[in-house]
Amino acid sequence: MTQIKVGLVGITGYAGMELVRLLANHPTFTLTMACSRAEAGKQLADYYPFVRNLPAGQVTISQFNVEDAAANCDLVFLAVPAGTAMKMAPQLLAKNVKVIDFSADFRLKVRQTYEDWYAITHEVPNLLEEAVYGLPELYADKIKKASLIANPGCYPTSIILGLYAAFKHQIISTNDIIIDSKSGATGAGRKAQVPTLFSEISDNFRAYGLGRHRHTPEIEQELSALANTELTVQFSPHILPMNRGILSTIYTKLSKDISLAEIHNLFQETWRHSPWVRVLPIGSLPETRFVRGTMFCDLGLVLDHRTKRLIIVSVIDNLCRGAAGQALANANLCFDLSIETGLNSAALV
Amino acid sequence: MTQIKVGLVGITGYAGMELVRLLANHPTFTLTMACSRAEAGKQLADYYPFVRNLPAGQVTISQFNVEDAAANCDLVFLAVPAGTAMKMAPQLLAKNVKVIDFSADFRLKVRQTYEDWYAITHEVPNLLEEAVYGLPELYADKIKKASLIANPGCYPTSIILGLYAAFKHQIISTNDIIIDSKSGATGAGRKAQVPTLFSEISDNFRAYGLGRHRHTPEIEQELSALANTELTVQFSPHILPMNRGILSTIYTKLSKDISLAEIHNLFQETWRHSPWVRVLPIGSLPETRFVRGTMFCDLGLVLDHRTKRLIIVSVIDNLCRGAAGQALANANLCFDLSIETGLNSAALV
Amino acid sequence: MTQIKVGLVGITGYAGMELVRLLANHPTFTLTMACSRAEAGKQLADYYPFVRNLPAGQVTISQFNVEDAAANCDLVFLAVPAGTAMKMAPQLLAKNVKVIDFSADFRLKVRQTYEDWYAITHEVPNLLEEAVYGLPELYADKIKKASLIANPGCYPTSIILGLYAAFKHQIISTNDIIIDSKSGATGAGRKAQVPTLFSEISDNFRAYGLGRHRHTPEIEQELSALANTELTVQFSPHILPMNRGILSTIYTKLSKDISLAEIHNLFQETWRHSPWVRVLPIGSLPETRFVRGTMFCDLGLVLDHRTKRLIIVSVIDNLCRGAAGQALANANLCFDLSIETGLNSAALV
Amino acid sequence: MTQIKVGLVGITGYAGMELVRLLANHPTFTLTMACSRAEAGKQLADYYPFVRNLPAGQVTISQFNVEDAAANCDLVFLAVPAGTAMKMAPQLLAKNVKVIDFSADFRLKVRQTYEDWYAITHEVPNLLEEAVYGLPELYADKIKKASLIANPGCYPTSIILGLYAAFKHQIISTNDIIIDSKSGATGAGRKAQVPTLFSEISDNFRAYGLGRHRHTPEIEQELSALANTELTVQFSPHILPMNRGILSTIYTKLSKDISLAEIHNLFQETWRHSPWVRVLPIGSLPETRFVRGTMFCDLGLVLDHRTKRLIIVSVIDNLCRGAAGQALANANLCFDLSIETGLNSAALV
Repeated sequence: MTQIKVGLVGITGYAGMELVRLLANHPTFTLTMACSRAEAGKQLADYYPFVRNLPAGQVTISQFNVEDAAANCDLVFLAVPAGTAMKMAPQLLAKNVKVIDFSADFRLKVRQTYEDWYAITHEVPNLLEEAVYGLPELYADKIKKASLIANPGCYPTSIILGLYAAFKHQIISTNDIIIDSKSGATGAGRKAQVPTLFSEISDNFRAYGLGRHRHTPEIEQELSALANTELTVQFSPHILPMNRGILSTIYTKLSKDISLAEIHNLFQETWRHSPWVRVLPIGSLPETRFVRGTMFCDLGLVLDHRTKRLIIVSVIDNLCRGAAGQALANANLCFDLSIETGLNSAALV
Repeated sequence: MTQIKVGLVGITGYAGMELVRLLANHPTFTLTMACSRAEAGKQLADYYPFVRNLPAGQVTISQFNVEDAAANCDLVFLAVPAGTAMKMAPQLLAKNVKVIDFSADFRLKVRQTYEDWYAITHEVPNLLEEAVYGLPELYADKIKKASLIANPGCYPTSIILGLYAAFKHQIISTNDIIIDSKSGATGAGRKAQVPTLFSEISDNFRAYGLGRHRHTPEIEQELSALANTELTVQFSPHILPMNRGILSTIYTKLSKDISLAEIHNLFQETWRHSPWVRVLPIGSLPETRFVRGTMFCDLGLVLDHRTKRLIIVSVIDNLCRGAAGQALANANLCFDLSIETGLNSAALV
Repeated sequence: MTQIKVGLVGITGYAGMELVRLLANHPTFTLTMACSRAEAGKQLADYYPFVRNLPAGQVTISQFNVEDAAANCDLVFLAVPAGTAMKMAPQLLAKNVKVIDFSADFRLKVRQTYEDWYAITHEVPNLLEEAVYGLPELYADKIKKASLIANPGCYPTSIILGLYAAFKHQIISTNDIIIDSKSGATGAGRKAQVPTLFSEISDNFRAYGLGRHRHTPEIEQELSALANTELTVQFSPHILPMNRGILSTIYTKLSKDISLAEIHNLFQETWRHSPWVRVLPIGSLPETRFVRGTMFCDLGLVLDHRTKRLIIVSVIDNLCRGAAGQALANANLCFDLSIETGLNSAALV
Repeated sequence: MTQIKVGLVGITGYAGMELVRLLANHPTFTLTMACSRAEAGKQLADYYPFVRNLPAGQVTISQFNVEDAAANCDLVFLAVPAGTAMKMAPQLLAKNVKVIDFSADFRLKVRQTYEDWYAITHEVPNLLEEAVYGLPELYADKIKKASLIANPGCYPTSIILGLYAAFKHQIISTNDIIIDSKSGATGAGRKAQVPTLFSEISDNFRAYGLGRHRHTPEIEQELSALANTELTVQFSPHILPMNRGILSTIYTKLSKDISLAEIHNLFQETWRHSPWVRVLPIGSLPETRFVRGTMFCDLGLVLDHRTKRLIIVSVIDNLCRGAAGQALANANLCFDLSIETGLNSAALV
């Protein structure tokens, strides 16, 4: 098959690292450009020893330049900070290069919401309308036609997939949702800072950003769309002493009288044609290890008869499903490849 | 000071192990008896290399026998399974040996509740009234006079201390409490079983027992007493890839209009004379490492103005504050020692 | 391509688990039989949630039976204990089913050595000659023609690949080799036992089996063959608080005057056509994470001018290269597939 | 007892953090000064939440100033980088303040060796003679009279204590010693840098600095003194995915015909009066967890009859015995306190 040329801007973070890993196994996409200001000039295999003797290993790291990108890439993945992506994306789009952005710059439809939560002035608000939110189970049709894809955040991915069936079948109240999420430490990024040193995270557990994490408006935007009403959620992230994985424990109130067996059926029915969303048997709860390195989102359901709450436990790999793998699934859709291309590994347990 | 002789039945679990550690540093209690059916005959230092060259190391492990216990002990700690403690405790009490029981056998005041949740017939229900719930900040006066102390569960300890001030000052609703707790793996015990092997827990995270964990009735009994009304909670435990520590994220609804500063003041005021309960400054959240190996319970407070929820984050060491250390504090009270005797270490960060 | 049918006896251990993972991605081999006495009757996806929605997930776990194996399998992988494999292999071979054995039963050429180190009487010593030691870089030609393959031990794999080039070019002394190996905890197996519980391994490090580990004779047999002389090694295993990976630090004495640059060239030359053995640039040392889940063996070289020692650091994934992946590479060779089929993933960093 | 006033310069590293922990439990030393350029002005409890509600928590962090130090301290611990300690120590000594230096600035007796390995010009070489190497089991008499104590490195501590008895009784060859050491990640310091981020260390293992680690000349200086001959060692450090602990596997060649039982007796005899050095029974090997947070050095002995090598496995806590605890033991000696004051905790298993 003809190779499709893709570039990556921002190789030094964990999401970029994961994309490099996944591209090494992709049959159709060839990494032709890898950009990093700090590491420009090195071969990728010298920066990332794990790609030595693999095709991507011989790419020379370069500084980002839109002319080079246009000459060498059909699509560019942006794994750069919020605020930087909004500068690069328009340049690439102007050259007819498709863009999949890992940052939040194009996820929020309402400019003011972005500016309130991110404290950054949006420079290209006109693109907010055009950008497609890249959650493939919900928006595959739009993704296929998109030039600019806002790749979802890791927490929102776990939460939206967890709640989708419940909203679709209108079985839960929209005004009493509490989401207690726990993420592996790769979610905190690869910047050198004391709070994410090994000896600060290992054998330790803590919450952070309670009531003010930036994924909150993204979660609310997408859930409001599913619920057909503006809703507010309580979202509480925590950081786990492990590398990968997000588990979200989602507390909801049932809005109708329905048994767990019926709920389970609705969930299974909803996801019947989505092989990556696995509704576990009643009595089983998901574990992060069983999705490690994959696109799977595993869901467990518990109905507490004492409190009338439906608890949904949703698990993903934050780097694969929550970032680079989902970006690659979106890229597959953009180029009319089967969505699963290069993404059907079993979990590394 | 005259030494007080104490015994421990059940040395092979993590709570027993922690008690051995703490007794090695205690100036007044001497370990005179250490019982284990499986390990009887060995010296304690051969079973637990960490006590070699320390006083307790030379104790010979024995089988439990009430005559020996009466001859050698002023007090016995029972670190045995639920169902076994209720057999041993009456024998010891009959010999005028004080008992501090780590199991749930004497924690629940209502026999039927115990039998429903533990599926064990209670053999000495008459002792349920007599037993004192050993949470020293709440019940020090009763503990000082008690012969039989039901040492609290680890999760309940973190939760009751977290919520106490809120109930005392009647600032939260009693019917909408969700507790999302996360515990280190020592909480799962030291029995040989596949689900707690290193490679099943490491780099993994999961929930368990949602809606049916046995600490639920204990939490509800104690919170109901504080709230002066029967209440039901949503309690969700999870297991962390680390050894020690519990963090409970407690979601409450405010029942009155009150600012975070006012709430913080109420909490500080409530715990002013309890040096082990530390109310962190507004803006700070607790971490399990900062209480490791100690009696501290660190509390962080967040008020989310968008949702009107007060979130209380409560952190303890599950083995020290949540089991052996709390038992030792209770023993200190029983023998009129200062409650802090042997228990004032700083956390091993 | 026509599917080749393979069976696995012994699914419950980590090596079997890893083989299930790898088969899920293999384009030609189909898992048609999965045997376990304890779990017979379940669907594989119910025992291993990570294969739900993948082809292998629907296999029903069965008890081993040679008739069924012969009817359903072209090849059977034996992931059973030493002593059991020697009973199953002859039955399968008699039915013309190829066998790849993960145990030590067919690795040692000298029956007495096996019986001395394993304390098991060998029941089919005649097969020792016939069995091929399945290290593909060294014995691919024999493996292609073999019916019975003794899959190498994990430690020996890391050590033999580490030392091969040095022996081939006769640059080291044969009588002064010290190998200090460190393995992830999956190497200790998946049996329920206290010493491998999470809280015994986590945040802990220890040596074990010094001077008497059963991989010693296997290492010595293979190195003696390379060195063309009987040699003895000092082999010291340790257990790491992590899941996967072996790092062997190998201390050798140079037998000739040669520079590090020359040694590095010899190593690179030796492995030029073996893409899975990666000789790192001078100054780089390997890390276990960079081979996680892969067939790679990364080698780092250090020459200490003060002591005249060449230190070789060799790193593999103990479950993939050290067990299931290597077995699959051998199976590829047995059926004339490209050796890399299904095995070319980049490391899950 | 009269309190002795001590200061700490360099609170932000792990060794300083550990000293703060240990001082919180010390009955005689009061922390009166805590210095850090970056954190000056804060209360110690705000920087280190684990000391809230403990005496040291109310110390205000200050910038180092020799006048203040002299006014407030009888002794100052320097937990600052090599090169900085040599500037501060002479100032303090001139004011009659005792100094215990955690850096390497005063450990090496030969100025040139220091300058070769550390690439720093020594500014006060005259103090090299005066400084006492603070390994209390070997040099207690000198330590008691010293004003300037060079606190040993963590690796050297584990190695010198491991080999001392063997040299004392002249049972090993001096020219064939290989030391393979593995350290917890706190040993790499608390500086913000990518290679020590959680997700770079966790679930990973690697060697570093082979043949050129700066502790090599310190090890050689001290072992040469014990052996009464200049010797060279092979020293290989590795970094473990855990916080605390060093395990050194030390390979030696016996220089005489002697049984393991005899060797074991010699070791036991040697350390009979040193309660912190524990010679384990034959057949037992030490584990880092059993010394966590303590001054213990646990030794295991293996004699391999096949190779005639005596393998000594030595385990310490790198932060307590390998840094802050040893410093405190030295301080105890300096002020004629019992060496064990404040240091007799059992390990936090």
